[in-house]
Amino acid sequence: MTVARDRLRWNGWGRLGESVAFSPARRAALLAALGPMFGRELRPAVEPVDLEEIELPATRIGPDALRRLRAACGDDGVRTGRLERITHAAGKSLPDLLRLRRGDVASPPDAVVYPPDEGAVAAVLRVAADAQLAVVPFGGGTSVVGGVEPRLGDGQRGVIALDTTRMDALLRVDERSLTATAQAGILGPQLEDALAAHGLTLGHYPQSFEHSTLGGWVAARSTGQFSSGYGGIDELLVAVRVVTPEGVLRTLEVPRSAAGPDLNALVLGSEGTLGVIVEATLRVRPRPAHHEERGFLFRSFAEGVAAVREASVAELPVAMLRLSDGPETALFEMLRRDPERTLDVATLGLTLAARLGYGEGHCALIAAAEAPEAREVRRAMAGVRALARRHGALSVGRSPGRSWRRERFRTPYLRDWLLDHDVAVDTLETAVPWSRLETAHDGIVRALGAALERHAGAGVAMAHLSHSYVDGGCLYFTFLYPVDPSHAVKQWTAIKRDATDAVVAEGGTVSHHHGVGVDHARWIAAEKGAVGIAALRAAKQAVDPQGLMNPGKLL
Amino acid sequence: MTVARDRLRWNGWGRLGESVAFSPARRAALLAALGPMFGRELRPAVEPVDLEEIELPATRIGPDALRRLRAACGDDGVRTGRLERITHAAGKSLPDLLRLRRGDVASPPDAVVYPPDEGAVAAVLRVAADAQLAVVPFGGGTSVVGGVEPRLGDGQRGVIALDTTRMDALLRVDERSLTATAQAGILGPQLEDALAAHGLTLGHYPQSFEHSTLGGWVAARSTGQFSSGYGGIDELLVAVRVVTPEGVLRTLEVPRSAAGPDLNALVLGSEGTLGVIVEATLRVRPRPAHHEERGFLFRSFAEGVAAVREASVAELPVAMLRLSDGPETALFEMLRRDPERTLDVATLGLTLAARLGYGEGHCALIAAAEAPEAREVRRAMAGVRALARRHGALSVGRSPGRSWRRERFRTPYLRDWLLDHDVAVDTLETAVPWSRLETAHDGIVRALGAALERHAGAGVAMAHLSHSYVDGGCLYFTFLYPVDPSHAVKQWTAIKRDATDAVVAEGGTVSHHHGVGVDHARWIAAEKGAVGIAALRAAKQAVDPQGLMNPGKLL
Repeated sequence: MTVARDRLRWNGWGRLGESVAFSPARRAALLAALGPMFGRELRPAVEPVDLEEIELPATRIGPDALRRLRAACGDDGVRTGRLERITHAAGKSLPDLLRLRRGDVASPPDAVVYPPDEGAVAAVLRVAADAQLAVVPFGGGTSVVGGVEPRLGDGQRGVIALDTTRMDALLRVDERSLTATAQAGILGPQLEDALAAHGLTLGHYPQSFEHSTLGGWVAARSTGQFSSGYGGIDELLVAVRVVTPEGVLRTLEVPRSAAGPDLNALVLGSEGTLGVIVEATLRVRPRPAHHEERGFLFRSFAEGVAAVREASVAELPVAMLRLSDGPETALFEMLRRDPERTLDVATLGLTLAARLGYGEGHCALIAAAEAPEAREVRRAMAGVRALARRHGALSVGRSPGRSWRRERFRTPYLRDWLLDHDVAVDTLETAVPWSRLETAHDGIVRALGAALERHAGAGVAMAHLSHSYVDGGCLYFTFLYPVDPSHAVKQWTAIKRDATDAVVAEGGTVSHHHGVGVDHARWIAAEKGAVGIAALRAAKQAVDPQGLMNPGKLL
Repeated sequence: MTVARDRLRWNGWGRLGESVAFSPARRAALLAALGPMFGRELRPAVEPVDLEEIELPATRIGPDALRRLRAACGDDGVRTGRLERITHAAGKSLPDLLRLRRGDVASPPDAVVYPPDEGAVAAVLRVAADAQLAVVPFGGGTSVVGGVEPRLGDGQRGVIALDTTRMDALLRVDERSLTATAQAGILGPQLEDALAAHGLTLGHYPQSFEHSTLGGWVAARSTGQFSSGYGGIDELLVAVRVVTPEGVLRTLEVPRSAAGPDLNALVLGSEGTLGVIVEATLRVRPRPAHHEERGFLFRSFAEGVAAVREASVAELPVAMLRLSDGPETALFEMLRRDPERTLDVATLGLTLAARLGYGEGHCALIAAAEAPEAREVRRAMAGVRALARRHGALSVGRSPGRSWRRERFRTPYLRDWLLDHDVAVDTLETAVPWSRLETAHDGIVRALGAALERHAGAGVAMAHLSHSYVDGGCLYFTFLYPVDPSHAVKQWTAIKRDATDAVVAEGGTVSHHHGVGVDHARWIAAEKGAVGIAALRAAKQAVDPQGLMNPGKLL
């Protein structure tokens, strides 16, 4: 079974007919609030271009290669139609959407193939090698860094998008070792449903969860919303199988090894440049029967950071500690405010909180815990509560957490609706040690603000601390600005460049979990250093001497 | 300051004048017990060859290269004397000791250099490149897999042992981020002492702790006795600096990154084949003020494994769970028995335990916990006790744990003393998932027994579960056999081959924490696969195109 791409938005997020869970009144309030921030009234933008209006270049793959691809993947497994080529032409980054909405699909893949198994993947790579075609591994296609952009390498004649979603089986579960092996094309909800039948969970919930695949998570070194509890995909991965142009790269199913460098780590974050991930064995856990989310308000970001840091050092068994800074807290409170309710409990609560000293600049923390036993959840939450109080926090109960949980996979829908009003929303993220976290936060927010002012005339920037470790945390920035419709991508590029320069200047990594793709490629040489890049390029060259795999990405 | 090699045993373990903490009576009892197992009386062996009697080949490094090495490292930093060359000619594996004791130092390094800093390391590599010399990075020299054996690569004319122990400073501590940066040549106790001044600990205690270096731990992907609590060196490493022949490979000091594959993982386990690790930043923790060790007896290995597995799945905050199988438990009990005491409490206790059903084949578990707060230690131990009881264990109090803690770095001394009686002791280890752990244990012990019978006429093999994870554990095997003095190394090689074949047949890794070196190189291709090996070789080639770094190891 493959993903029904015709039921998904080709130029936006998620399923057709689904949308962010905000009422029309709340949306209107949001527009009314953003307008003055941008110094203009927000109006519906020009309608996006219709799919049927897009002119596609002819397929550059010859009949012989197509015939061989069909022999490997079946007639239905090789597609060259408009919808398939366009839905595999881009990921889900802001510039992707800006381009798609105006009908700019300059370089779609020439064909989309859906190999049914590892043998078919190897066959596709052989065809690509013979016909000089690039191969872009494509799972859910949710990359926000241009990771699935079809690009030609030197001397290549066309691009195959290799869609992995036909390979979507949970292959086996080792209940004693708590590991599960699945094909790489399985989607998040499919995998969780299949594991639930065994009473197990992977606990990996990236924002893209509903539409991204296991293979994509591994390829992009993904983390999820609950990775503070379950660990990032790098900690969950036991073993992997990757079909490279030179054969299968596979690692051993053992809990740890010192038999040379860990090859899993070479695959994690390789972003399709080594080969096609076809299978992964993962650490799974007993399914949690209990969960709890709770909100806290801090008087300042610094106090919140101190509490989160101490919780991380104490290794409290929480699933998530998500601390918004002042501007993000204010935006979320605005989003939660329901103008249609005569008695708005949330607003009332904030008024009371302000009287208690949690006024201007207060910061919201959402803490989540889940576990098979209720007492484990209680212990985690008691620990958070004690630390939060020690840093002056006000407990605001379960309602903000419930609201977060309900909408946690829905926020990307908001971006599409805002784009309908020529308001852009984008995010970027980094990780830094605790000793530099607040300076980095302030520096990057300031740089973002300046970049928005410079390139968009206005805009708002905010952040939250999304993941924390004993030695530091991930800062996740969100920024909104009015789109300049005549130069939308150029405008974004300028903002992105200034913002990422600021991330690097603060000593942060260019990505804690989004990856590199094409959008961060400019900064990767500085981050990895010349010697590191040489080593990674050589490893790639060894398994993909012709440079078939996802050219133009990562390195 | 460098290590005073003249105060260490050149042909055995540790410091001159120190020895295993067993009384002469206990030693005699051990010999008396082992003799019948081997079907012969154990007598003192031929005395080892004296250091001064060893004939060394002349140094193959020309005067020009020596002059340049002296310019880089200072006159005292370049040594070609007998003691230096011999102490850098081998590690501390059983075959190393067998060879050294009979005076077999066929290929010592031609010179030993002690660079004072990163610049000097780079200068040494340039000399090596120009003069076609191999460079063997040498920290504590405690490799048990031949990792520091001086070998010539193709076309090379000599070997430099690059001793890192002059670079032994703790450079900085980030108390807020709980990280510490040290030079790679710092020894375990030096590092812990320096961290203690800040109230911190790394918590990394490999068996070699007293004599091994930070750089060696990283190079060999080390784990320690308490790595169940603190994590292996791979989890403790934040960032690293490596001087390669092509320049410095360094990673960013951030808690996590998705900016491409993790280069730390390429360095971890690279065993000196990429370059010289000169600096590492590590996750450290508040120093534990409280610790507790406790012993338990299980009726069977299977019941003990079940308890340890459940403790690992529950992620109990223990530092160590060390479960011996029946034969190892019996040996340890024999070692603890003190023939000079009229009232031997340990023996009395075992007699009582046997009446309670913990007789033939009973297995000892030692659990350890340490933490800054006493209640954390209590919580961990209460968890272990509950699980142990559920699996039928008898708690035997703190005495076995105290005895383990007291002697935990001393057992390697036992090997030397046994070798004085032509009794060989060696160890090997692997990791497997829980679902295969008992089968693997039984299969490998059986194969070891057969190998000892075949190649030594007799011997005993035993194991313990040394490290456990949610998905599996490390099995650590110890075996003793009577040495055939005329073919000691050949005999060992035959036993090692049969045993490691058995490890691989059981699906285990050839090493959970000892590394590859030369001893496991034979099996590495199968473990990593042809494509994996090609990728690793290419990465090495990129940073060391002339193959200067530690030839003949790992790949």
